[in-house]
Amino acid sequence: MSTPLRVTVWNEYVHERTSDAVAKIYPQGIHSAVADAIRQHLGSGVSVRTATLDEPDHGLTEEVLAATDVLTWWGHAAHERVEDAVVERVQRRVWAGMGLVVLHSAHNSKIFRRLMGTSCMLRWREAGERERLWIVDPSHPIVAGLEDECFELEHTEMYGEFFDIPPPDEIVFISWFEGGEVFRSGCTFRRGKGKIFYFRPGHETFPIYHDANVRRVIANGVAWAAPTGCRYFGEGRNIPEPLSPIAGEHVVDESLHRAK
Amino acid sequence: MSTPLRVTVWNEYVHERTSDAVAKIYPQGIHSAVADAIRQHLGSGVSVRTATLDEPDHGLTEEVLAATDVLTWWGHAAHERVEDAVVERVQRRVWAGMGLVVLHSAHNSKIFRRLMGTSCMLRWREAGERERLWIVDPSHPIVAGLEDECFELEHTEMYGEFFDIPPPDEIVFISWFEGGEVFRSGCTFRRGKGKIFYFRPGHETFPIYHDANVRRVIANGVAWAAPTGCRYFGEGRNIPEPLSPIAGEHVVDESLHRAK
Amino acid sequence: MSTPLRVTVWNEYVHERTSDAVAKIYPQGIHSAVADAIRQHLGSGVSVRTATLDEPDHGLTEEVLAATDVLTWWGHAAHERVEDAVVERVQRRVWAGMGLVVLHSAHNSKIFRRLMGTSCMLRWREAGERERLWIVDPSHPIVAGLEDECFELEHTEMYGEFFDIPPPDEIVFISWFEGGEVFRSGCTFRRGKGKIFYFRPGHETFPIYHDANVRRVIANGVAWAAPTGCRYFGEGRNIPEPLSPIAGEHVVDESLHRAK
Amino acid sequence: MSTPLRVTVWNEYVHERTSDAVAKIYPQGIHSAVADAIRQHLGSGVSVRTATLDEPDHGLTEEVLAATDVLTWWGHAAHERVEDAVVERVQRRVWAGMGLVVLHSAHNSKIFRRLMGTSCMLRWREAGERERLWIVDPSHPIVAGLEDECFELEHTEMYGEFFDIPPPDEIVFISWFEGGEVFRSGCTFRRGKGKIFYFRPGHETFPIYHDANVRRVIANGVAWAAPTGCRYFGEGRNIPEPLSPIAGEHVVDESLHRAK
Repeated sequence: MSTPLRVTVWNEYVHERTSDAVAKIYPQGIHSAVADAIRQHLGSGVSVRTATLDEPDHGLTEEVLAATDVLTWWGHAAHERVEDAVVERVQRRVWAGMGLVVLHSAHNSKIFRRLMGTSCMLRWREAGERERLWIVDPSHPIVAGLEDECFELEHTEMYGEFFDIPPPDEIVFISWFEGGEVFRSGCTFRRGKGKIFYFRPGHETFPIYHDANVRRVIANGVAWAAPTGCRYFGEGRNIPEPLSPIAGEHVVDESLHRAK
Repeated sequence: MSTPLRVTVWNEYVHERTSDAVAKIYPQGIHSAVADAIRQHLGSGVSVRTATLDEPDHGLTEEVLAATDVLTWWGHAAHERVEDAVVERVQRRVWAGMGLVVLHSAHNSKIFRRLMGTSCMLRWREAGERERLWIVDPSHPIVAGLEDECFELEHTEMYGEFFDIPPPDEIVFISWFEGGEVFRSGCTFRRGKGKIFYFRPGHETFPIYHDANVRRVIANGVAWAAPTGCRYFGEGRNIPEPLSPIAGEHVVDESLHRAK
Repeated sequence: MSTPLRVTVWNEYVHERTSDAVAKIYPQGIHSAVADAIRQHLGSGVSVRTATLDEPDHGLTEEVLAATDVLTWWGHAAHERVEDAVVERVQRRVWAGMGLVVLHSAHNSKIFRRLMGTSCMLRWREAGERERLWIVDPSHPIVAGLEDECFELEHTEMYGEFFDIPPPDEIVFISWFEGGEVFRSGCTFRRGKGKIFYFRPGHETFPIYHDANVRRVIANGVAWAAPTGCRYFGEGRNIPEPLSPIAGEHVVDESLHRAK
Repeated sequence: MSTPLRVTVWNEYVHERTSDAVAKIYPQGIHSAVADAIRQHLGSGVSVRTATLDEPDHGLTEEVLAATDVLTWWGHAAHERVEDAVVERVQRRVWAGMGLVVLHSAHNSKIFRRLMGTSCMLRWREAGERERLWIVDPSHPIVAGLEDECFELEHTEMYGEFFDIPPPDEIVFISWFEGGEVFRSGCTFRRGKGKIFYFRPGHETFPIYHDANVRRVIANGVAWAAPTGCRYFGEGRNIPEPLSPIAGEHVVDESLHRAK
């Protein structure tokens, strides 16, 4: 494809400005680290912008979303401050084909919970323990380029099962934690024309988004979530005539599929 | 099991009181026909009550839901009149293990859309055309007792693809329509501890809920959606100690899983 | 159901007769322990017999299989000694609706590999290490009666990912191992009208089949795998006439679906 | 990617040489039409060769397979003439990452049946009737470029449910047939590192592989089935040390994962 993939990296950008410890790890904000990872791996194939909570419309106006092929989402402390109108706008844009990469504590974001229909609850513990992410789908493009059958993060926040999500369409990684838990760490879902990748690693006080493997997986996830699929939905109606001469009319409830 | 399965049959109960044509087919309301079908097949194994839109809390108080193992839902004209607080109450009860059987036009109900995370849009046409429901999972308990590989309904409202739902956990039936469409007519989903069965047939102006095969499938769906699973979720925390002596604490985000 | 579920417990029965250590744990053979577990939980609802490698036809004649609703399979040292004709007989019986519960090292049995279509390879280590089985589908009947969100086995053989199976229809348990691995420990699959449950725990030198939770899950798995579904397949043809008057004939390639 | 995708198009090439009717539609053989479709859409990104039944090793030597990224398969009259040794070679190559696109009557090929583990039976009728393929996963790259929500083939052989395959990982198309049947016409599966796409359309006496939409979908399927995923499997062992100092050894049962 000659036109670059248009990526918007969203970050609530709260911890980095209120905690010295976090600011030391992510001096430009977590969004900068995530954006760098995507640029590092996808290069000229991608055009990346960032958006944060404090901007008008959280930086996610209709115009920005209409010009976004894949959105990545990081939030933790301020899920409730995200306006419902923006959440609904993002949801409709996902339905119309925009990819969504949901990172770490964004499991509890409004947008992820609305798209899943579940509580998205999980177990957690902050103990800086070791995590191993095992590949359970070696065929998946999201693990492209990984050298081994698993990779390790030395100090992480633990997330454990039961992770209250719908059964994922695909499970790509399962994590092992030193303290005794497991977690479905890389999961994909489809909603409408949009593809969603949830990826567990990340935290504000561990330098997870500087890890080489994590950065590659995020970039792979963005590439995988890029819009593909047919042209139909959202480009207006195009309904074939019925084969048999049947009275009545074809109607499609598709007001929600207008964009894209 | 010696205690009967507690089933609540919900119906918006609008068409039957405003249209003579509908009243002729369902003189006691669609809920009565659905409740009869369940009693017919599950007999003494089931205790069935009904609830409708006009009752206080739409008949779905905390007490009623706490005493409901499986809820069936029919709605069409009045989805928007269902209060959000009740919808959220039902959703949490599904997460805690209550089964949900969603019938026909309830594809567009608030509760189904919230649990799916998608628009749940579809194509439709009222032409009284022929439908064939083909079994595509012959191993499933929901098709127990069906004699043939498909069954027919002579006059139906057409529902066609694309049906905007998440990829179902299981597809049990696919419908063929005389006018040229197909539809995933019997689909299962899990959300939390709750099981959900969407079943397409039904309409207010066709006597679909008097059809022998439809009645059997609805009863099978109720039996399948009955709560099963482990005791843990919702009965409070019960977290094993970590194996390794790790500083920090186990915390579970489970406020949403209290009931049941 | 008034007629009891007919279960056949198969065991290659080699280790128990060649090793004192194994004989001490399973003096009557692993099949006796498995059969006991099933009887303990399913009581009068079940009629259990056993069969072993050294019997004629490995104890799995056409007559035995025709009178078996669910077959459980344990093998380890002698997979290659199972005759292909018997394997094919079992496979066709699964297609026709017989349930199959595959235990531990039977991941590498001929029958499991034929039904999966993959190598079924995995990582393993005998170190007597601790295992935790986490429930990742709390709604599933296979976890009915379990008290907690996970259960532990103190000394086990490790099985680790990548477990080369097709993506399971349902993942019920994921195991955590002390040495650093994870494993999809409880998985379901459907093949034709038959349901298959793979359950990891077990080993000839650890008393796994005396563990209360393991015994319950095996019994649950047997109950879940019991034949359900429609009557059609295997009871001969029953093909509806085409709706439109189309020249040509309906033919079904169903020679393989005769039994049951 | 700068190196082109290496595609091998396999055809049993029997009908075209024994029937004038077939030869008129496919004068160079069905493989030529399929190869052309792939070249038409993937252009310089692909390098296509063909192989047929009558060649030594059916044209599928170890060398050819080692140099094949995606294999397409068409067979109908001569499934039994394909040697088991070649079938096993293809199966292992799929496990190691080669994509496989299975066309029409190859549902009954040895290779597809071995990879599925089921009978792969279906209903069929030759009546030259109309088929509509409805898109049920609009997000999928396999439907990229299709203009409408369905496409039609005017004269086809009917394939109907129940199609005895494992529940597919993804269902992309569902077909409607004029005579009253439905069929899961576009299905994906993963086996090991390999991706498999089954696509129904095609027949020796209908010019299906000259249809613009069918040609596009086949090319999309080839692109989708291209090897992706991690580097590990098949490039030798690379096992991380256990975290805890545990006696015993890590062993991997991976003799089957050597190639690629």
